[in-house]
Amino acid sequence: MHLLSPRGFRAAGVAAGIKKSGKRDVGLLVASHEVEAAAVFTTNQVVAAPVVVGQQHIQGGKLRAIVVNAGNANACTGKVGLRDARRMSALAAELLDCEPGSVLPSSTGVIGHHLPMPKVEAGIRDAYTKLGTSAEHALAFQEAISTTDAFLKQAATTVKIGKETVTIAGVCKGAGMIGPRMAIAKKKNIQGHATMLAYLTTDAMVGGAALRSMLLGAADASFNVCSVDDHTSTNDTLAILASGASGVGIASELARKKFAAALQDVCLSLAKLVVSDGEGATKVVTIRVTGATSDADAKLIARQIGNSNLVKCAMHGNDPNWGRIVSAAGLGAAKFVPEKSRLTVCGTVLYKSGSPVAFDAAKVSGDLKQSEVMVELSCGLGKGSAVFYTCDLSKMYVTINADYTT
Amino acid sequence: MHLLSPRGFRAAGVAAGIKKSGKRDVGLLVASHEVEAAAVFTTNQVVAAPVVVGQQHIQGGKLRAIVVNAGNANACTGKVGLRDARRMSALAAELLDCEPGSVLPSSTGVIGHHLPMPKVEAGIRDAYTKLGTSAEHALAFQEAISTTDAFLKQAATTVKIGKETVTIAGVCKGAGMIGPRMAIAKKKNIQGHATMLAYLTTDAMVGGAALRSMLLGAADASFNVCSVDDHTSTNDTLAILASGASGVGIASELARKKFAAALQDVCLSLAKLVVSDGEGATKVVTIRVTGATSDADAKLIARQIGNSNLVKCAMHGNDPNWGRIVSAAGLGAAKFVPEKSRLTVCGTVLYKSGSPVAFDAAKVSGDLKQSEVMVELSCGLGKGSAVFYTCDLSKMYVTINADYTT
Repeated sequence: MHLLSPRGFRAAGVAAGIKKSGKRDVGLLVASHEVEAAAVFTTNQVVAAPVVVGQQHIQGGKLRAIVVNAGNANACTGKVGLRDARRMSALAAELLDCEPGSVLPSSTGVIGHHLPMPKVEAGIRDAYTKLGTSAEHALAFQEAISTTDAFLKQAATTVKIGKETVTIAGVCKGAGMIGPRMAIAKKKNIQGHATMLAYLTTDAMVGGAALRSMLLGAADASFNVCSVDDHTSTNDTLAILASGASGVGIASELARKKFAAALQDVCLSLAKLVVSDGEGATKVVTIRVTGATSDADAKLIARQIGNSNLVKCAMHGNDPNWGRIVSAAGLGAAKFVPEKSRLTVCGTVLYKSGSPVAFDAAKVSGDLKQSEVMVELSCGLGKGSAVFYTCDLSKMYVTINADYTT
Repeated sequence: MHLLSPRGFRAAGVAAGIKKSGKRDVGLLVASHEVEAAAVFTTNQVVAAPVVVGQQHIQGGKLRAIVVNAGNANACTGKVGLRDARRMSALAAELLDCEPGSVLPSSTGVIGHHLPMPKVEAGIRDAYTKLGTSAEHALAFQEAISTTDAFLKQAATTVKIGKETVTIAGVCKGAGMIGPRMAIAKKKNIQGHATMLAYLTTDAMVGGAALRSMLLGAADASFNVCSVDDHTSTNDTLAILASGASGVGIASELARKKFAAALQDVCLSLAKLVVSDGEGATKVVTIRVTGATSDADAKLIARQIGNSNLVKCAMHGNDPNWGRIVSAAGLGAAKFVPEKSRLTVCGTVLYKSGSPVAFDAAKVSGDLKQSEVMVELSCGLGKGSAVFYTCDLSKMYVTINADYTT
């Protein structure tokens, strides 16, 4: 299955010359008509122009298309940037014969440069002529939204609603400036990070507040609890289009539950792909915190561990240096009592009740060599729990990021 | 000048076999009698045994000595660790014929291992026999408190009080797990980081609440606004001993002001040495935020910029990738309005009023090659200001930290 497996969608991706590499950099994802839609966006206060425009366009809860460019984020570009983002939507709308407000624009790439609009416009026109429904079309769209991604990312699943089946599919991009915390509207006082773009399609009949709330729930359990470098991007966007082409409604409580779970599965698969493709990363580290005073405290503790450079370096070196994990757990505002905690790495208990536990360091170091490793911290304080996904920190991350624009 | 330039102190540093390298690892700093003292400690909730004991011993506001070991942090070591930290104080007290409560213990090194007490005790006895007042004695003490430090760190100054002169001197250690936020007593809800140990001596007559408050003020303007990897250590300790041997009191408002400023100078010199010796660091980056809604907001913004791996990598690559700095400014709870801000790097304006400014990238990249660089962000919102000190992130940081215990 791929992005266009749910019925009612076409896509294209073309090379418009925005990327210096000459690779595909303008994408179009088009629904058969104006369909139900929802989106969540970065909570960074520095918001790219396409996010400002996208937040306005999603207000009505319907979209006809998504137009994206890679190679330039159109962020920190002032009024010129806003005009350019609006022009992207307007041109796509003109070609598709719909309202500009029905087209969501996105951009990803370097911050602080104006879009080369002649190239972008030619790219949108070109993409329009190449729209199609095949796996190759989905792939071309995926290529067009990618930047430093080492591989293309997609996920899909089907949901049984009674005797009928609906499909949910998604693609995303992201490898650096990753650690999204997205919300329905721009919301203050939420820290966040990443240029992560993700687009989902479904042929289910679902929309309005239900779709919005299920999308936010899925984001909170996936993209919003993953990090590569804990740096919220100016452009993070997650959008879903629901064509209704299956004719199957998501109406009952049970149907909603099943659909929401499937949506979350797709988002989590995509988010873990982003983390595994984290710049320079060699493994995904899952941090599971239980027994905290509250879910919010558990989340803070998991995040502190997952964003510690010392922990991430130890993971890279397959080093069971658990003191870094325990000390990271205590450095924030979330209540943590070392004497009540228990730390398990790859199934081996390393620390319990305030004291070290004798363990086979060579065995744990060997276990840490896997591409997916598990860190479990039981706090012994209450019923709060959370999961956070991060990657290791390698020399390659520094290589990639010490010389990006110049 | 050196740590023992202020009259009334002796020190020693010996090799007790705790460090595998065989280098000095047990230090004693002793005042001529029980003197006025103050100390601030890590606010991590995971607190090393010597910090627990030290917090008790400093309650009375007087100390006779400081006993330190390096090579083992005595953190996450439970009741055994507490007993060992108390034994360090008790043994030093026995030798010095004072109360155990007059000796502040410190430890630094790897977390989660019990102290090799026979070696530690032999080291304390050995150090006691080697106490002296020369520069060599101060140097030996400095070596004994060091771990991954690439160079020894000291600072000193004199203060004119009327026609008299008092001296303030200090030494410190730290290169990784750095980003202290220390407070008088353990205080919740303050995030923090680092094993940073710093000890100050002065021959001024000053003590009690005044000394405590000046020490905290100095910490807040130096160690508490510096970071290498934003990971609060379990062991951070900053202590000052005031022998009074100069016979000069710090009583008047003016004298206090001058003394507090000098104390802050010494602490800032030491803190900047720690940052410049940050694991793998090649430069110190000073981040000055002005025009924020409040000083607290300015501090948050400066901290977000200084702790962004993307910013730190760009600094390492001499890359004026200012989008990372501006996006880091907006990712937290502190109010930030890009349209009102102005970013200056090494004296060149790169971003203003929400839009990019044309600049000579080669020139700024050249300026970034200096060992001290300045990032200035004016927020245009109010009168809040703050300064934060950080270093670049290099491949060497990863090398050092990916393979530390195993």
